[in-house]
Amino acid sequence: MTGGPLEGVRVVDLSSVVVGPICTRVLADQGADVIKVEPPEGDLLRNLAIGARSPGMPGKFMQFNRNKRSICLDLKQPAAMAAMHRLLDGADIFVSNIRPAALARLGLDAASLAARNPRLIHCAILAFGTGGRYANRPAYDPIIQSLSGIAGTFERATGEPRFVPMVMTDHTTGLIAAQCIGFALYRRERTGRGEAIEVPMFENMASFVMTEHLGAASFDPPAGPSGDLRQLSPFYRPLPTKDGWITVSPNTDAQAFAFFDAIGRPELRDDPRFSSAQARTANAAAYFEVRAQGLAQRGTMEWLAILEAADVPVAAYNRIDDLAQDPHLRDVGFIVPEDHPTEGRLHRTANPNRFGGGERADALPAPRLGAQTREVLHEAGYDDAAIAALLDAGAAREASLPPA
Amino acid sequence: MTGGPLEGVRVVDLSSVVVGPICTRVLADQGADVIKVEPPEGDLLRNLAIGARSPGMPGKFMQFNRNKRSICLDLKQPAAMAAMHRLLDGADIFVSNIRPAALARLGLDAASLAARNPRLIHCAILAFGTGGRYANRPAYDPIIQSLSGIAGTFERATGEPRFVPMVMTDHTTGLIAAQCIGFALYRRERTGRGEAIEVPMFENMASFVMTEHLGAASFDPPAGPSGDLRQLSPFYRPLPTKDGWITVSPNTDAQAFAFFDAIGRPELRDDPRFSSAQARTANAAAYFEVRAQGLAQRGTMEWLAILEAADVPVAAYNRIDDLAQDPHLRDVGFIVPEDHPTEGRLHRTANPNRFGGGERADALPAPRLGAQTREVLHEAGYDDAAIAALLDAGAAREASLPPA
Repeated sequence: MTGGPLEGVRVVDLSSVVVGPICTRVLADQGADVIKVEPPEGDLLRNLAIGARSPGMPGKFMQFNRNKRSICLDLKQPAAMAAMHRLLDGADIFVSNIRPAALARLGLDAASLAARNPRLIHCAILAFGTGGRYANRPAYDPIIQSLSGIAGTFERATGEPRFVPMVMTDHTTGLIAAQCIGFALYRRERTGRGEAIEVPMFENMASFVMTEHLGAASFDPPAGPSGDLRQLSPFYRPLPTKDGWITVSPNTDAQAFAFFDAIGRPELRDDPRFSSAQARTANAAAYFEVRAQGLAQRGTMEWLAILEAADVPVAAYNRIDDLAQDPHLRDVGFIVPEDHPTEGRLHRTANPNRFGGGERADALPAPRLGAQTREVLHEAGYDDAAIAALLDAGAAREASLPPA
Repeated sequence: MTGGPLEGVRVVDLSSVVVGPICTRVLADQGADVIKVEPPEGDLLRNLAIGARSPGMPGKFMQFNRNKRSICLDLKQPAAMAAMHRLLDGADIFVSNIRPAALARLGLDAASLAARNPRLIHCAILAFGTGGRYANRPAYDPIIQSLSGIAGTFERATGEPRFVPMVMTDHTTGLIAAQCIGFALYRRERTGRGEAIEVPMFENMASFVMTEHLGAASFDPPAGPSGDLRQLSPFYRPLPTKDGWITVSPNTDAQAFAFFDAIGRPELRDDPRFSSAQARTANAAAYFEVRAQGLAQRGTMEWLAILEAADVPVAAYNRIDDLAQDPHLRDVGFIVPEDHPTEGRLHRTANPNRFGGGERADALPAPRLGAQTREVLHEAGYDDAAIAALLDAGAAREASLPPA
């Protein structure tokens, strides 16, 4: 009993790297039992990411795979595939981020699995939706950041395309896949039936960008140029102060007028370009320039004090290494120390969201490759002799304990 | 009957601008009946965004508010608040992005509403979680991009902090709120009880950044510096060609070696810095530099042809205005023409995700302010005389039809 809204939900997770693992981490954090099925070489992220205390256990892998159990199966062997099907017979959810053709070759496509387990929710996370011409192309985050328009928004803002310095399209699509699974779980309670879901990265990120930036070009013919000019301004960024950077966000009239006073330009509240929220939006470029000029006059700490006192939304920015010390995050217990059984002491981030109906209370450490192979096979009905046979044949593998 | 996994779910939506409206748009796209409750001046986004054919109906507002119905209530009037409570008595979900203190002042906090409707799922989207010292601060997307470490990832990559040119933290948190609501709906089917959910922007985005970039600094003491050096490289971007830009993503050995051949550097496959995926990750900066030097030799179209033929993941980038013409998006019918009853012809984006169990089949146009005031009040049990009284008092308001 884990607690959490997904208590009792069993997930078989044949996914790797980021887009699938963040989806199933959400399910795990919400109380589901996530069985991570890994090939003999392990999830690619075990070896792709750097920064580990022991092989196959880098910090990035551990962040994406907490609260899961790992079973290692060599699905090329029929005995391993038989074990996989036994796991799927008892599963509520199957998640993969494998291309559709490869999934069908393995016999793990939605139609094949529905025949055995009609209550199964089959979630295929794809780079591109089936039915379009890119469907069989390989894609990684930079390809999707390029095609979905993200790189293009930077070009509009600064003249040069670039990517968000995160695997944003993997990460966001994985969060959406978990969302879709929740909806399908809800429907299954009402209909008794599972279903197949397809969650494509490209379409989801194109939707993200177009929802924000189609704007006036939503109309046919367009009512004006595409794009929200506030976010596409070159000044949509922390602005330089005398000694660093600061972010201000004076949006309402009260905030904007207090800001004009603070920078010694009280006359701007009567400037028709800046006298209302609508006017400031229409003149976003000019408004951002006024901000930039004003903020250059003083240092960051001085501005923080002045603008907080004037009730203007203001912040310095946190670097990655600052986050663990952020006072608010400390107040809410966002960083949880964890003593991992083999990897030592870690910083674990908490589930950011609060559920009044109960939350997952236990915390499983990120698994070494095949750490729960034996336990999961037992639960699936294999006895000790059958497990030994699978292990002997190399169809299933176990984590070897690191030397003491 | 809408079809879609959330068919029959009724949502009362007291949210505005982006973070709440994208959450409830997801619910609406998935078949829920979303009743958007707006004050007499309307959702701020109606007036904040530019690019409209008629007042209060800019393209950006319409993208975030399709498939919803609008009722306009002046909640300062007791008769309007009584109508709000009648709506909530019949609702499954209540979504707001109002600060906790203001919600309590309105009597719309979770405890008050649970007393009347114990099956209600009360989703409060917040800037900062309650229990931390920033809880009552106002925040907009740039403040959260600063505090959550997003601006800091750009500083690591390029030396200067900046924001993603989208309201990424609003948008992502809204998607997560919809995800949490799905999980609570699932649990309610099993327990019969609603619950209160809190979805804070800051914590969710700090989780996003730390999951990706804590890396070796997940360990205490750290096993190395924080950050995934691939995404934090200044070269994590489309790279310049002779005449434009191109994105390549040669990750596997086969892809990387084909790429080395294509740029005329076949010897690099034996270079220990680049001979395996792990080596290329550890030497990400050098690997990106090799790519940049190689790609400068030819034009974009030439590279696309060469690298596609060599099976190297490659793409040019789409600008916002290119997306509607993208051939894959056209194949999958991603852009749907819509003839809005008052705003004319629009480009509407499709729900990116496929649900085998059925999808929302009907399409409601984005509502003018108060377009369904009368209809929704009728459904809540008000008769014509009672509705007339609310309208006469200004407690409820209707959309005025634009002049013919």
